[in-house]
Amino acid sequence: MPFDKFQEECGVIGIFNHPEASNLAYLGLHALQHRGQEGAGIVSSDGRKLNIERGMGLVSEIFTRSRLKRLPGKTAMGHNRYSTAGGSHLKNVQPLLVNYSLGQMSVAHNGNLINAQYIKDQLEAYGSIFHTTSDTEVVIQLIAISKYSTLADRIVDALSQVKGAYSMLFMNEKELIAVRDPRGIRPLVLGKLEETYIVASETCAFDLIEAEYLREIKPGEMLIINNEGLHSSFPFARMERKACIFEHIYFARPDSIIFGSTVNTVRKNFGRALAREHPVEADVVVPVPDSGMPPSLGYSEESGIPFELALIRNHYIGRTFIEPEHAIRHFGVKLKLNPVREALQGKRVILVDDSIVRGTTSRKIVKMVRDAGAREVHMRISSPPTTHPCFYGIDTPTRKELIASSHEVEDIRRYITADSLGYLSVEQMMEAVPSRKDGYCMACFTGSYPIRFPEIKRNQLELFP
Amino acid sequence: MPFDKFQEECGVIGIFNHPEASNLAYLGLHALQHRGQEGAGIVSSDGRKLNIERGMGLVSEIFTRSRLKRLPGKTAMGHNRYSTAGGSHLKNVQPLLVNYSLGQMSVAHNGNLINAQYIKDQLEAYGSIFHTTSDTEVVIQLIAISKYSTLADRIVDALSQVKGAYSMLFMNEKELIAVRDPRGIRPLVLGKLEETYIVASETCAFDLIEAEYLREIKPGEMLIINNEGLHSSFPFARMERKACIFEHIYFARPDSIIFGSTVNTVRKNFGRALAREHPVEADVVVPVPDSGMPPSLGYSEESGIPFELALIRNHYIGRTFIEPEHAIRHFGVKLKLNPVREALQGKRVILVDDSIVRGTTSRKIVKMVRDAGAREVHMRISSPPTTHPCFYGIDTPTRKELIASSHEVEDIRRYITADSLGYLSVEQMMEAVPSRKDGYCMACFTGSYPIRFPEIKRNQLELFP
Amino acid sequence: MPFDKFQEECGVIGIFNHPEASNLAYLGLHALQHRGQEGAGIVSSDGRKLNIERGMGLVSEIFTRSRLKRLPGKTAMGHNRYSTAGGSHLKNVQPLLVNYSLGQMSVAHNGNLINAQYIKDQLEAYGSIFHTTSDTEVVIQLIAISKYSTLADRIVDALSQVKGAYSMLFMNEKELIAVRDPRGIRPLVLGKLEETYIVASETCAFDLIEAEYLREIKPGEMLIINNEGLHSSFPFARMERKACIFEHIYFARPDSIIFGSTVNTVRKNFGRALAREHPVEADVVVPVPDSGMPPSLGYSEESGIPFELALIRNHYIGRTFIEPEHAIRHFGVKLKLNPVREALQGKRVILVDDSIVRGTTSRKIVKMVRDAGAREVHMRISSPPTTHPCFYGIDTPTRKELIASSHEVEDIRRYITADSLGYLSVEQMMEAVPSRKDGYCMACFTGSYPIRFPEIKRNQLELFP
Amino acid sequence: MPFDKFQEECGVIGIFNHPEASNLAYLGLHALQHRGQEGAGIVSSDGRKLNIERGMGLVSEIFTRSRLKRLPGKTAMGHNRYSTAGGSHLKNVQPLLVNYSLGQMSVAHNGNLINAQYIKDQLEAYGSIFHTTSDTEVVIQLIAISKYSTLADRIVDALSQVKGAYSMLFMNEKELIAVRDPRGIRPLVLGKLEETYIVASETCAFDLIEAEYLREIKPGEMLIINNEGLHSSFPFARMERKACIFEHIYFARPDSIIFGSTVNTVRKNFGRALAREHPVEADVVVPVPDSGMPPSLGYSEESGIPFELALIRNHYIGRTFIEPEHAIRHFGVKLKLNPVREALQGKRVILVDDSIVRGTTSRKIVKMVRDAGAREVHMRISSPPTTHPCFYGIDTPTRKELIASSHEVEDIRRYITADSLGYLSVEQMMEAVPSRKDGYCMACFTGSYPIRFPEIKRNQLELFP
Repeated sequence: MPFDKFQEECGVIGIFNHPEASNLAYLGLHALQHRGQEGAGIVSSDGRKLNIERGMGLVSEIFTRSRLKRLPGKTAMGHNRYSTAGGSHLKNVQPLLVNYSLGQMSVAHNGNLINAQYIKDQLEAYGSIFHTTSDTEVVIQLIAISKYSTLADRIVDALSQVKGAYSMLFMNEKELIAVRDPRGIRPLVLGKLEETYIVASETCAFDLIEAEYLREIKPGEMLIINNEGLHSSFPFARMERKACIFEHIYFARPDSIIFGSTVNTVRKNFGRALAREHPVEADVVVPVPDSGMPPSLGYSEESGIPFELALIRNHYIGRTFIEPEHAIRHFGVKLKLNPVREALQGKRVILVDDSIVRGTTSRKIVKMVRDAGAREVHMRISSPPTTHPCFYGIDTPTRKELIASSHEVEDIRRYITADSLGYLSVEQMMEAVPSRKDGYCMACFTGSYPIRFPEIKRNQLELFP
Repeated sequence: MPFDKFQEECGVIGIFNHPEASNLAYLGLHALQHRGQEGAGIVSSDGRKLNIERGMGLVSEIFTRSRLKRLPGKTAMGHNRYSTAGGSHLKNVQPLLVNYSLGQMSVAHNGNLINAQYIKDQLEAYGSIFHTTSDTEVVIQLIAISKYSTLADRIVDALSQVKGAYSMLFMNEKELIAVRDPRGIRPLVLGKLEETYIVASETCAFDLIEAEYLREIKPGEMLIINNEGLHSSFPFARMERKACIFEHIYFARPDSIIFGSTVNTVRKNFGRALAREHPVEADVVVPVPDSGMPPSLGYSEESGIPFELALIRNHYIGRTFIEPEHAIRHFGVKLKLNPVREALQGKRVILVDDSIVRGTTSRKIVKMVRDAGAREVHMRISSPPTTHPCFYGIDTPTRKELIASSHEVEDIRRYITADSLGYLSVEQMMEAVPSRKDGYCMACFTGSYPIRFPEIKRNQLELFP
Repeated sequence: MPFDKFQEECGVIGIFNHPEASNLAYLGLHALQHRGQEGAGIVSSDGRKLNIERGMGLVSEIFTRSRLKRLPGKTAMGHNRYSTAGGSHLKNVQPLLVNYSLGQMSVAHNGNLINAQYIKDQLEAYGSIFHTTSDTEVVIQLIAISKYSTLADRIVDALSQVKGAYSMLFMNEKELIAVRDPRGIRPLVLGKLEETYIVASETCAFDLIEAEYLREIKPGEMLIINNEGLHSSFPFARMERKACIFEHIYFARPDSIIFGSTVNTVRKNFGRALAREHPVEADVVVPVPDSGMPPSLGYSEESGIPFELALIRNHYIGRTFIEPEHAIRHFGVKLKLNPVREALQGKRVILVDDSIVRGTTSRKIVKMVRDAGAREVHMRISSPPTTHPCFYGIDTPTRKELIASSHEVEDIRRYITADSLGYLSVEQMMEAVPSRKDGYCMACFTGSYPIRFPEIKRNQLELFP
Repeated sequence: MPFDKFQEECGVIGIFNHPEASNLAYLGLHALQHRGQEGAGIVSSDGRKLNIERGMGLVSEIFTRSRLKRLPGKTAMGHNRYSTAGGSHLKNVQPLLVNYSLGQMSVAHNGNLINAQYIKDQLEAYGSIFHTTSDTEVVIQLIAISKYSTLADRIVDALSQVKGAYSMLFMNEKELIAVRDPRGIRPLVLGKLEETYIVASETCAFDLIEAEYLREIKPGEMLIINNEGLHSSFPFARMERKACIFEHIYFARPDSIIFGSTVNTVRKNFGRALAREHPVEADVVVPVPDSGMPPSLGYSEESGIPFELALIRNHYIGRTFIEPEHAIRHFGVKLKLNPVREALQGKRVILVDDSIVRGTTSRKIVKMVRDAGAREVHMRISSPPTTHPCFYGIDTPTRKELIASSHEVEDIRRYITADSLGYLSVEQMMEAVPSRKDGYCMACFTGSYPIRFPEIKRNQLELFP
């Protein structure tokens, strides 16, 4: 498949009607940096022309004062891209910007389309030339060949042909358009700062620029923002909501409100439920930083067992850290975590983490804690066993690599060498989500995928230069 | 303390007799990255010649596989440098390496000399030419003109003439020499990994390379490590130990053992003592990340008031982040911290931080917590009021800028708009340090400086091009 | 017009069936560097996949050993691009490489299409998305939508729709295809090195790699080179040959054979004819380096007046040389040329140059020679007055800026302050070209353009990001 | 001589009292670029402080508008450095700038000291620390330890202790000081532009900035330029002038006046003398570009045999050109020169070059000309056989590599496969130099070295890291 296997998580932000639109977009991207560190870009419009600046790396590394000055205008949108193996090229960094028969348009996409290859093969057969390996370009090419006469109509025409998860922002010279897929898989929120409208992946982007959180953009909603104001419509066939539960478990920032709930609260609830479902006698509850923090606090509160920050994270690891060769090998998690020996020595330790993927990291952490002198190590996971890969924008390994796809909990416990292992059950997890009745995608735990796949004949690995 | 209020000093690591000496030094520098992020360097010796690689930025950004390969040999030492205004040039990045009449020598220095300018003026008058703006070069020039015939003797000769704080590593083609100043102001520890000796600023560097912690290098001790083994001597006049208490309060990593105690334990003790000294009725104890973490846990445990991670840190700030111009200004602490609104709303909040320097950051954090809905905000500081600047290697502002040097606690409370403010007292702080009888420098809290200043007539800030 | 106003001169080279195809292409581009210094690229095929490396700058700056190693395979082609104001972006550097329904294809183009904007507007109206501002992309898009089933047939289909000058190379995984436009405006030659076929803009590329010159590729000829050998065809309507006379006057290297004649010989002939047409009594013939060299030697030989290298060229000017601001301004030609005072003092000097464009440079050179002490300065030009811009690939200014388009010879003489001025006439120029009966485009001197323009409605300056 | 057989030394320029001093220095360095392409630097003084900008590469690549703006003040000096194997580091790029007891000083040096190592060993024994591998630093260290109280006196003190060739510029905050060694080996000229004094290696630097040539700075002269004007003195023991004849043969630009004569005229005279000394029947005289140009014109004029530019130079070779690996090897001179086949075919050719070093290049050129169809190839060299290396600033190979040091002319002729070979004799060469009575160093032809060597015990090639 020539597209990046899974487009994976990203962050998007759009600003309409602010004299420093691109500055706000820049700050928003900074607040959303956790959703993608590979690259970032901002497009702005001065009403007549779109300007773009993109680069590889962190937002703070890419944007200089002079680059931001090259982004004038009162409308802007930005995109943070997650790092993926193989497809890491500047050309794939979004927003994408093209000229077409109606002028200029730009797109920023969070999510993943599952029939992109199928559509691409068809478009190429009719002479379309693709220039990126991003599934997002399919939407652009569909818009370019659409017969409708406005960008909004062409977006509806194009998105009606794609399947998958998307929270997408579009811009032309005059408008900012936000669309969330009919199942609402990825988050997208609406905010306001005086006369300025803002759309973003998470509310933490609003906090930094002191914007007010108005509401979620609803599943299947298209929001056209232009000089006449805000126009909301629901142009797609209505479907059951399937918000991604993994955003609550791991991806979103704890200070954000997504899908109507504060992430930190949900995570603490997971920890409390976990304490009830998998209690154990112990001396100390230790989080695996950083995502294990809120559930371990919940576990500690529910169980009454003291909370201890006994694993210290090195935040300076950087993207280019190399492991030296030869004799000293496989530092792995040790480069990021170090135990506080005195806090673990002779203790019965409950380690709380958000998930286990391949099991190799958990195995190393258990060993590290035991080497530091822990008498017992009990692993508690604030989500169910991850048994299936995600096709809607989360960077999970293939099914084969997911330890829980082929091993029972007891096997996993033995592999990671823990004294006991407890996962939060799907049922208890759902109990812990405030808005559970609204519907969540839990395919990574259940294999019950809400969207059907197209049949793909070719299986090319990477066609593009 | 969340930010670079007190800017760290430096970190050093030395490796003797390991086939991958420079790789180990590299890993050690990574573990010590918190002690300096401006630049780093490594020198290695293959027995006949010293090689050096230095650069600006993080350890992970500077060292590539090919640069590490250019550092062959079984002895190596590395240095992390902290960024200071004005003197940020590659030429100041250590280790320094020179050729002199005995061959090659290299130096890595953690600390600060207080009579460097005085000696430099004298040396220049006799024709010495200085090439850096680093006080460390004074030691090199003194070694170069010394009449003694071995590096070790010349080091003693040179260091006998300087005053100040230093944990210094020296290397020539055959030897690694570690010296700690007679008062032992800055930490320095000795470890072992099979046949390899390691010296480092903190024990966290040992953990990563799986070396065993042997002991502190003692105040005034000189350790010569060569093929004949370890040779310890105490060539300087014996003085009272004056270990820097601020290493325990803020600088060192919580997982390290320095001055004989685990830093995390000491910090939690500070928090417990603070709870006893300044109790208050409240609903929640919230740390100011990251250094407020251990004392707030101690406070929570001692007081029984629940601990809550209600301030979320953005770890992606980067060294090059620019604040956009004009209208939207002074984001300051907001770029790094964001409150979890739901966890603070309607609550009486105890904020725990390690220190207050200028007060401006604390003021912003109190406002941020109050804006997020807190009913009361009580600030607790796990150290005494910082009233005096440090001259021994800690980058504190001038006395004028230290809010506690000219304001009473009540004034500071009013300035930071907290409902109450409590500092740990010097007495309680000393109670909480296990090895207190061994002597600490607390000049930043008491003004009682252990080393007398030379009289300096000139007052040049930056002499060099 | 969104395309670069005039695509201007370039150099191309193609290599078929050599184990070091990309190395040969690299050497060929080096020999053709005078045809374009803005950027260069090489595409290679290993039989299954095309690889590309491109960059801005000189061939020697762009290609490192490791970049050349990333270009494996036995077929390769390269392109040197000329610098033009405004459109200087990496994306415009050729060869262009795309994926389309038949696989991969790559194009390298020397020349300029005059109906590119017209075709582009039509293609965009049907949904094509353009990604460069190069007229060459029109050909790619036409190939992509062609209904034929082979690359060769699609090329014929596409080129039948364009008008203009082109010597083009195409590559897919298996074939190298060379096409010259029916009028043969730009040169293209065929060579052989044992079993390897080579096509290039000029024969100087053959000399460096020790290939043998076989023949010109003929106007309107398409040469398909693949494992079955060389296949020649003439798929376009036959037209009168219109080889660009300016290649002989200025652009090609003097050691090349193009259009069947050695450039150096033609230029010396121009000089001899000039001496006959515009004789003058003088002491010395001085060339304006470097292109004035051969005609001034011819002038000297014909007239018997001694030749003198009295203007010295500084070859280090570089592309990034900046002229310092303020007081000292407009060094212009002085940065490149300096007179040998002693060789000019008191002399009657004949200056020989190949052409006068705006007249400003000639004016400065005349002044420079006079300031150096020349008693008289007679300017002789080895081509007719340049009165019309080129639309077929030579970088001439607009008609308004061409001094000869609106001024008589006597006016120009007065403007450049020469004592006399003589241009070679069109008739004498044609007498001096050996293959004159074969037909030349002399539109820049006569305004008689061999290709009719399409009507263009829009006049957009630069649409693309 | 087409290539860097004898590698040039350096170029210097100093500007006193001009509001755009650093801009003029920049232009001067550009004009002197042929004297050194490895790196360049400029120091300026605003009367209180010296500023410096240095870099690797060509002047046009190093200096941007913003770097020139960082060089304010009315006094400036610049230096072009030649590339030598091994010592190619930024730290060796001049001017060197240091702080010492009297303030700041800067040095730019053209030439080579022969007792630098000897003095350095002594200085190190007394504690001096060297920071570069440049012999120029010896002078700086000697100035730093001098007991005199002014820079000028200390310069005299320091230079009295060194032996060798030097044209040196010194600057402090207030003065520009130029010194030429007592034998006047390297050139140095004085010019004026209104109220501004300029010193430079060659007069071509004056032409570009429109300064007037006043006179040579004399052997042994020290010129102090400050606000009181120009002060000339001759502080060293007077010696016989020994101007480097190789400047006239090869190094200097033909448009420069050095040692009182125009270089172009001297070179043409060499060619005329060569024609008289080694006549031969032939059809054409062909220069080896670029330095063979003037002598071949002289040869052609004297002999009446037509001059032909039949070897074309590729000026784009660049410093980073790589020769591709494997099969296609040793392009050598072919990358720079290509014959015009038609101008050589069937001809008896006289090739004129300025010198033969190793003979390998000449051998390739003879072969190239013969392969292009020449019937006979007669090589004529406009200087005597180069038998001895230079120790005074010219980068010649060791004696062993100089073909003429161990081979007779007839052996060399056979090696380079020429039909005949003629060198200009020392006697005829001296006849051709206008100011011959003034004394020239011809040690490279005669082995008669004007300066005695110190005895050196150690033989270290590269002491510094």
